[in-house]
Amino acid sequence: MRGVVMHAPGDVRVEERGDPAILEPTDALIRVSATTICGSDLWPYRGVEEVHDAPMGHEYVGVVEEVGADVRTVKVGDFVVGSFWASDNTCEICRAGYQSHCVRRVPMGSLGTQAPLARVPLADGTLVATPGMPDEDLIPSLLAASDVLGTGWFAAEAAGAGPGRTVVVVGDGAVGLLAILAAGRLGAQRVIAMSRHADRRALARTFGATDVVGERGDEGVARVKELTDGLGAPCVVEAVGTQESMMQAIRSTRPGGHVGYVGVGHGVSLPGMELFFSGVHLHGGPAPVRRFLPDLIRLIWDREIDPGTVFDLTLPLERAAEGYRAMDERRAVKVLLTV
Amino acid sequence: MRGVVMHAPGDVRVEERGDPAILEPTDALIRVSATTICGSDLWPYRGVEEVHDAPMGHEYVGVVEEVGADVRTVKVGDFVVGSFWASDNTCEICRAGYQSHCVRRVPMGSLGTQAPLARVPLADGTLVATPGMPDEDLIPSLLAASDVLGTGWFAAEAAGAGPGRTVVVVGDGAVGLLAILAAGRLGAQRVIAMSRHADRRALARTFGATDVVGERGDEGVARVKELTDGLGAPCVVEAVGTQESMMQAIRSTRPGGHVGYVGVGHGVSLPGMELFFSGVHLHGGPAPVRRFLPDLIRLIWDREIDPGTVFDLTLPLERAAEGYRAMDERRAVKVLLTV
Repeated sequence: MRGVVMHAPGDVRVEERGDPAILEPTDALIRVSATTICGSDLWPYRGVEEVHDAPMGHEYVGVVEEVGADVRTVKVGDFVVGSFWASDNTCEICRAGYQSHCVRRVPMGSLGTQAPLARVPLADGTLVATPGMPDEDLIPSLLAASDVLGTGWFAAEAAGAGPGRTVVVVGDGAVGLLAILAAGRLGAQRVIAMSRHADRRALARTFGATDVVGERGDEGVARVKELTDGLGAPCVVEAVGTQESMMQAIRSTRPGGHVGYVGVGHGVSLPGMELFFSGVHLHGGPAPVRRFLPDLIRLIWDREIDPGTVFDLTLPLERAAEGYRAMDERRAVKVLLTV
Repeated sequence: MRGVVMHAPGDVRVEERGDPAILEPTDALIRVSATTICGSDLWPYRGVEEVHDAPMGHEYVGVVEEVGADVRTVKVGDFVVGSFWASDNTCEICRAGYQSHCVRRVPMGSLGTQAPLARVPLADGTLVATPGMPDEDLIPSLLAASDVLGTGWFAAEAAGAGPGRTVVVVGDGAVGLLAILAAGRLGAQRVIAMSRHADRRALARTFGATDVVGERGDEGVARVKELTDGLGAPCVVEAVGTQESMMQAIRSTRPGGHVGYVGVGHGVSLPGMELFFSGVHLHGGPAPVRRFLPDLIRLIWDREIDPGTVFDLTLPLERAAEGYRAMDERRAVKVLLTV
């Protein structure tokens, strides 16, 4: 099969990769219906993370093509959604809701789902079947559930979003935008999106942002304080992963408030004394998307949420390199690759 | 009156300081029955924090001597316990349980309670009266409630201590020892104390530690993992405030677990990437002791807990300098100063 390989920063090609096969009795092989490029794929693309000849992609929806001998909960022909971490969903860490830290976890990114076929380890724990074959127009939303929606949802929960709350979202990429949607669904009364790009501000509004703030850094913090009686917000999502965005998130949070952070922190170093005196709660990391999948699939299936509108560019897999360029240059929020 | 003044690192004297007086209608003046030296007083004593001619002390119990015109909830003659932060207990931050971050807060350390008299700002919000005059033997425990017990309690709660849980406590000073007591009272099944000092290990046992681990750093982390099925503990208290202790606490915590940290982080810098992939919850800072005071006073009054045993040296106020030396040299866990 032909799949996406990143040979070096900026060098993305679609080329022959060889077909995957069942290796373990707990594996499934799926025929990928749609896949996508993640904001985190831009770190190696930009040379911030090292990369050499790596198969790419970790988000996927598709139809089960073959299962290993021990697979019980999904069967050939099922339409499935999985998280970007394969997890057994039975270990103590999984049972506590942290499947992205499963003791047997496998990063799907190491297998590369930007391809027509993908091997999914620990299929019973990882994959969730939809109630039937989805209508074509539901596929983008189901694909979003595989990472960006689940990650945004986790971030909103980690930030303490709930009924009547004010939630600030730092970061207007796909995860930040879907954290806005999640915050609203979790009952937030007010959702303040930090964004200065006209197209993303508009998307933020459609996902439920009640306020949009264009300022960043200290000015952004000052603006949030103005909007929150001078105290800072009780709930703040961080969905970027830079020193500036982390400090902006922490400083926008009132004492006792919660920061939910899901931006992979590159070069971030948190000053202990400032963190101490901030009095905030800090929680985040790789999102345990599997925890949320059943609920998210139901919300999408019942057309209660439409996270798929976060995809603003669709390309065939063969043109993946164009998709990387578009996201790198911020011409696209999120690229859907059809297979 | 004569009170404790730290002129410079290592230079503690008891000298004439002038009597405090009611300055605001919300102030109370209390006659201090007992006060104490805090582990945090050792930071300036050791030159880690700057200090010049500072009145010292922020923990206190005593009898109300005089109240300002607006004081309503305490009256002359009441025996009272207060937190080391004066707080109005009515602002939005206080109502959320974060009185140590009250929008009108005043640090008692800036006023100096190592003295026979102390002015307490925001008396209605800060002070809690005991049900009557306490028996003499209850005074050490009530004094502990003013900071170290309340701080240990907050740390245990921030670490998620609860029924059936395993709680690790990093730090065997007074706060760490009382976090052990708190964890037990909150229902923890197993409390692992990290300590290698024989006297403190013994105290840890009396406060309810079920296991004591002498190793530190990476070896301490490895030992905790051995004791927790290789996963790390779900609940970890950090009560030191150094880079090593913070990293030890974070690394001892399983993904999804909670670190409650109350050591004032001197020179601490948390690596963003490691924190991200740890998946832990982090919460701490200056403890909102006021939140816990009514419950802690009741537990002490009813003789359900005896945190006062954490004081292992009692000296008259005039000999405060000896007390500082004893704590600095780790010859004493916590020094009670009688007034």
